[in-house]
Amino acid sequence: MTTVRLTLEYDGTAYAGWQIQPNGLSVQQVVEDALARVVGEPVRLHSSGRTDAGVHALGMVAHFQTERALPLSAYREGVNRFLPRDVAVTEAAIAPEGFHARFSARGKWYRYIIYQGPVRSPLRERTSWHIRSALDVAAMALGARSMVGRHDFAAFRSSSCEARTSIREIFSLEILPHGDLLFVDVKGSGFLKNMVRIMVGTLVEIGMGKRSVRDVETLLREGRREGAGCTAPAQGLCLKEVWYETPGIEG
Amino acid sequence: MTTVRLTLEYDGTAYAGWQIQPNGLSVQQVVEDALARVVGEPVRLHSSGRTDAGVHALGMVAHFQTERALPLSAYREGVNRFLPRDVAVTEAAIAPEGFHARFSARGKWYRYIIYQGPVRSPLRERTSWHIRSALDVAAMALGARSMVGRHDFAAFRSSSCEARTSIREIFSLEILPHGDLLFVDVKGSGFLKNMVRIMVGTLVEIGMGKRSVRDVETLLREGRREGAGCTAPAQGLCLKEVWYETPGIEG
Repeated sequence: MTTVRLTLEYDGTAYAGWQIQPNGLSVQQVVEDALARVVGEPVRLHSSGRTDAGVHALGMVAHFQTERALPLSAYREGVNRFLPRDVAVTEAAIAPEGFHARFSARGKWYRYIIYQGPVRSPLRERTSWHIRSALDVAAMALGARSMVGRHDFAAFRSSSCEARTSIREIFSLEILPHGDLLFVDVKGSGFLKNMVRIMVGTLVEIGMGKRSVRDVETLLREGRREGAGCTAPAQGLCLKEVWYETPGIEG
Repeated sequence: MTTVRLTLEYDGTAYAGWQIQPNGLSVQQVVEDALARVVGEPVRLHSSGRTDAGVHALGMVAHFQTERALPLSAYREGVNRFLPRDVAVTEAAIAPEGFHARFSARGKWYRYIIYQGPVRSPLRERTSWHIRSALDVAAMALGARSMVGRHDFAAFRSSSCEARTSIREIFSLEILPHGDLLFVDVKGSGFLKNMVRIMVGTLVEIGMGKRSVRDVETLLREGRREGAGCTAPAQGLCLKEVWYETPGIEG
């Protein structure tokens, strides 16, 4: 039995999220379908996690097991031929014994893109959140700093989140101006449902002067979702990378 | 009679180009329709030029004349309400007497984006040309340098181009690496039909080693379209800016 690790890029606009579900087409579904055509049997993918409807990925990781011994190019170039233009396998590798895309993951990097300007931007529409008002980036950076570290993020998860514990560690959270865009780069051990989007929604409200930097500490202490900011829209979010400590799985 | 100058941004993916035509929806059509709803009468737009089907714009300029005296915000915020999400007016200004979006233009800046990598990239799909092979950027830059200046660009225009003269001036042509993207930035007095795309197609063939840098001089001298490179695909091209020397039309 071989475990194959795939890295996937997708434009999430047309999808109901990563995970297979009864209503709406998922990314997982189209990848499993393409894999089945190449492998010649049904394939079950296990991913590093889910992404919400409309969220993009540059480096989603998933694995599957197979008895077939196909060359790795079959899982990249071969599978890409059967995938729609908004989804692609960017890397395929043989994973070491015991590798699991979700349980072996050591961290994830998400980027949220905010477009700041008086008028909406058609060319940035699919991949950013348009904010008309000026944002106080220094205040946002202060708020971001309070989120770094190991905390109970109960206030920053969707009410439908089913994770057993809401303790997570944020390794870094940076606000990076990039022309008329603002990148919010978050790296952490793992994320709760909607967590990055609620963090960004809260930071934007701080940037607009609608709430104070100190709110973040209160939210982390009290854990009340109603106290946190809005859930930033899905299209601004992109899963950039997932890290694994297991050596030797590259290439 | 007032002349209003509009700057427009659009994602050209869904359109049959700028210009109104019998088959297929044009950007001009959707903007004229939205303007008519705001102005309350039919409006005829005159643009700085056409863009091909699938080509994008960050700064297309067009003007129209009207007897109505609406505030400028009507032509931006007002019109944007009636435009689809892939088109927007980004600026509206009163133009000086005698202004014409096409005849008053002094220069244009186009950017062509090439994505270099072994696998296609879903997130760059709509706005770049994917080239699998490695490109010799230094050779491309040399080829580009030969194109700068005032030349007869007969070899670099579509066979259906109807311009009377094919003499044009290229002010600058730069090849700018940007991560795994390559920007081809062209600034010039004006452009023939498909001109930028044929220039890029030719430069890419030079970068692949399929033709020599010296070909450019031969092409400029002999003017044979058959001798030049392929027409690079539309989705990589974006009209960034149009310049006017007339002062006082900002704001």
